[in-house]
Amino acid sequence: MGKEIERKFLVKDNSFIQMTTELLHICQTYISDKPEATVRIRVCDDHAWITVKGKNDGAVRDEWEYAIPVNDAMEMAERLAGGWNIDKTRYVVIYEGARWEVDVFHGRHDGLVLAEIELSSASDSFVLPPFIGDEVTGDPRYYNSVLAAHKQL
Amino acid sequence: MGKEIERKFLVKDNSFIQMTTELLHICQTYISDKPEATVRIRVCDDHAWITVKGKNDGAVRDEWEYAIPVNDAMEMAERLAGGWNIDKTRYVVIYEGARWEVDVFHGRHDGLVLAEIELSSASDSFVLPPFIGDEVTGDPRYYNSVLAAHKQL
Repeated sequence: MGKEIERKFLVKDNSFIQMTTELLHICQTYISDKPEATVRIRVCDDHAWITVKGKNDGAVRDEWEYAIPVNDAMEMAERLAGGWNIDKTRYVVIYEGARWEVDVFHGRHDGLVLAEIELSSASDSFVLPPFIGDEVTGDPRYYNSVLAAHKQL
Repeated sequence: MGKEIERKFLVKDNSFIQMTTELLHICQTYISDKPEATVRIRVCDDHAWITVKGKNDGAVRDEWEYAIPVNDAMEMAERLAGGWNIDKTRYVVIYEGARWEVDVFHGRHDGLVLAEIELSSASDSFVLPPFIGDEVTGDPRYYNSVLAAHKQL
């Protein structure tokens, strides 16, 4: 089991684009979106995973992740979830030695931009990049599982 | 994706025991039990799997299965499902060239015995062993996901 410890923020301007070192295309969907145990299927470029996550405890969450064939992921999305529910471009920004992932959502959630930093301990300190807005860690409206299931924010 | 094609029967006597060629101990639980997409965690002796299954269409069901570390399975059962919900001994019987799996349930479902045969096509013919009782294929009361979630039959 891994522990996912992440903090999530709104993004207030586009300055992250010029700071980007890596660009990924992510499609994902949920075959279980109940908060006690979400099961996510994700394709990121030419890799795919099935990921099980427990309930959030502040910024901390249990996580188990397994690589799977991309074809399996496509089939599960199609046959179990009626297609991908989240389609986003991930801009990776390294700022003051820390890795930030800025997700620009497409489709139903077009216009939504969220930035996340993954920490090794909930008490890790870090420097906020200039594009970071309000913190939304733990706000269920911004869980990807909730975005996948529901309407636009 | 695999296709799981199986037929399930009640068992009317214990004659399967003397016909058994292999004995396995299985613990399993469900982190999603919605019929459109069940997610099962299983430990069978010293191996473990995460298995995603689609909705039943008669005896046929989509299935995706991945081997995972036994430790991960134990953690998921404990942290996401409050422990194992199904504990059974599997008696494997080869009869007239076909493999039958007879599951003897313990704990909450003590006394329940179900036999299954896995087919490569829904139209495959096979010979019923003498211990086979009424067919319950497609009867939701005998889905393992339903047995895991609910009370005794």
